[in-house]
Amino acid sequence: MVYIGIDLGGTKIAAGITDGREKIIAQASAPTDAQRPYQEVVRDMAACSLKALEKAGIRLDDVGAIGVGIPGIAENVNGTVIFCTNLGWHNVPLREELRRHIDKPVFIDNDATVAGLAESIAGVSQGASSSVFLTLGTGVGGGIIINGKPWTGAHGVASELGHLTLEVDGIPCTCGKDGCLERYCSATALIRMAREAVSLHPDSLVLIRADGRPENIDGRVVIDCAKEGDPAAMKVFDRYTKYLALACNNVVSFLDPEVIVLGGGISNAGSFLLDAVREKLPRYLMFRTMPYSRLELAVLGNSAGMIGAALLGKMMVEENVL
Amino acid sequence: MVYIGIDLGGTKIAAGITDGREKIIAQASAPTDAQRPYQEVVRDMAACSLKALEKAGIRLDDVGAIGVGIPGIAENVNGTVIFCTNLGWHNVPLREELRRHIDKPVFIDNDATVAGLAESIAGVSQGASSSVFLTLGTGVGGGIIINGKPWTGAHGVASELGHLTLEVDGIPCTCGKDGCLERYCSATALIRMAREAVSLHPDSLVLIRADGRPENIDGRVVIDCAKEGDPAAMKVFDRYTKYLALACNNVVSFLDPEVIVLGGGISNAGSFLLDAVREKLPRYLMFRTMPYSRLELAVLGNSAGMIGAALLGKMMVEENVL
Repeated sequence: MVYIGIDLGGTKIAAGITDGREKIIAQASAPTDAQRPYQEVVRDMAACSLKALEKAGIRLDDVGAIGVGIPGIAENVNGTVIFCTNLGWHNVPLREELRRHIDKPVFIDNDATVAGLAESIAGVSQGASSSVFLTLGTGVGGGIIINGKPWTGAHGVASELGHLTLEVDGIPCTCGKDGCLERYCSATALIRMAREAVSLHPDSLVLIRADGRPENIDGRVVIDCAKEGDPAAMKVFDRYTKYLALACNNVVSFLDPEVIVLGGGISNAGSFLLDAVREKLPRYLMFRTMPYSRLELAVLGNSAGMIGAALLGKMMVEENVL
Repeated sequence: MVYIGIDLGGTKIAAGITDGREKIIAQASAPTDAQRPYQEVVRDMAACSLKALEKAGIRLDDVGAIGVGIPGIAENVNGTVIFCTNLGWHNVPLREELRRHIDKPVFIDNDATVAGLAESIAGVSQGASSSVFLTLGTGVGGGIIINGKPWTGAHGVASELGHLTLEVDGIPCTCGKDGCLERYCSATALIRMAREAVSLHPDSLVLIRADGRPENIDGRVVIDCAKEGDPAAMKVFDRYTKYLALACNNVVSFLDPEVIVLGGGISNAGSFLLDAVREKLPRYLMFRTMPYSRLELAVLGNSAGMIGAALLGKMMVEENVL
């Protein structure tokens, strides 16, 4: 039996055929083109899935379930996407629509949640009964695994870790509140801090690498310059990893999972990032002499969404949820 | 079968004989006198338990287990109190010591955790599979119930909700960090804000009620004056309930439990507090049109510690943990 995992992003649909563990047998992708009616997007999700199946040489009869990771929130009773801000989706009957094309059990969950599930079954937090996955990208997403299963809360609005308050009346957030954690811990935040820094230090290597244009600064430039010892970049990186360590303490002091996994674009900084956060975290813990969550980098990369979505489908079918 | 619940506080030991639900059949108490060697404190814990049993006219044979709630963290493999800052306890073999006096199974957990368990089985969050209990007292404690059971994390350091960061580099906390949530949401915080306010508004009713002495201001005075419409007190209360609403959003956006229970001294403000936080919380939520955790006041009062400790003992014995 194989499982289809679909990673529905704001710009790309990616569908993979998996062995129900970490192996992607074949995959296919298409642009999301989110302005279209949702029916067209779903049609392309089905088309990608069938194309990947064909590449893999596997018949539809051998598919156990379809899992979908979405950048929003879903509920699996009716198989509905409740909110997907990037796509402009609201109460979209995704299961029903997808089953018009492929008649298999369909399960949906948040993209960070399924990525966290992927890491907890086939990645760096493998074998951990509890883990928290933090995606450090445009925003900050969270995926929570408790007793081996995704935890999305009593009303499906849990694990929005980017929207905990880190600073009362702090930087305005896209969500409408102020001072949300993702305004300090996302790639967007790192870039904002770097742009502020180069306005004060126009001689910074960061600005040189960005061809003198602050709008060219991205996360990689900041991290590369910090690695190379540019003072402005180092200061920004130091502040960023302090915020991230505070965020990790929030996770430890709230849930104390076995593992905290850092994923998303910023996690490509690798051990440079991990070492800095590991070094700072202990000073923000409540119990400094007690063991606490292991801090790790995600290992499944961009495939985590597909793998995790497929794992979700497998898990739900095996639990006979529908 | 009855269960003994011991609430070990910084100033008082309270032991109750319970029916394994919400009913306290008899109880007894003694001063903690925390400066003493722990052996003497534990001896008095046993003495209180036996006295309460005698009052209840119940034989030791009918006791199923002893549960203990402590203002600190414990582990139930060895039955050890790991930390209890108020008592100056560190790695105290509480189970072993207590069993010298009463040879019954002994289980230990944090006081906010057992109070949360009590509310979730016999109180306001009764029947909820997930709930979070917040004690608003000298500090802010947290108790987390997931799938009907206390969640203390993979390393026992979870549910320290008072030590999430609410303000980067904010008010210094007793824990050594800065800007912890309990520096904004505890009774101590409310009192601090009121003292600051009366220094600017010496004509405030708050200062009159405190006989002109800021050091006499307590939580009740501030809340009473706010209820009566004193402008300075109202402003302080408004700020305090804003912080508390932000704290509640942190709970919703992280765990989204069925119920959030407000307990501890400040919760005696009743509906005046609850209405204010309920009114403010929605503006801090990520998904403002979605259902979210029900916000309630604790109903078991000071007995929650005893009741919850006894429930912990019962639950652990029934699960055959030892």
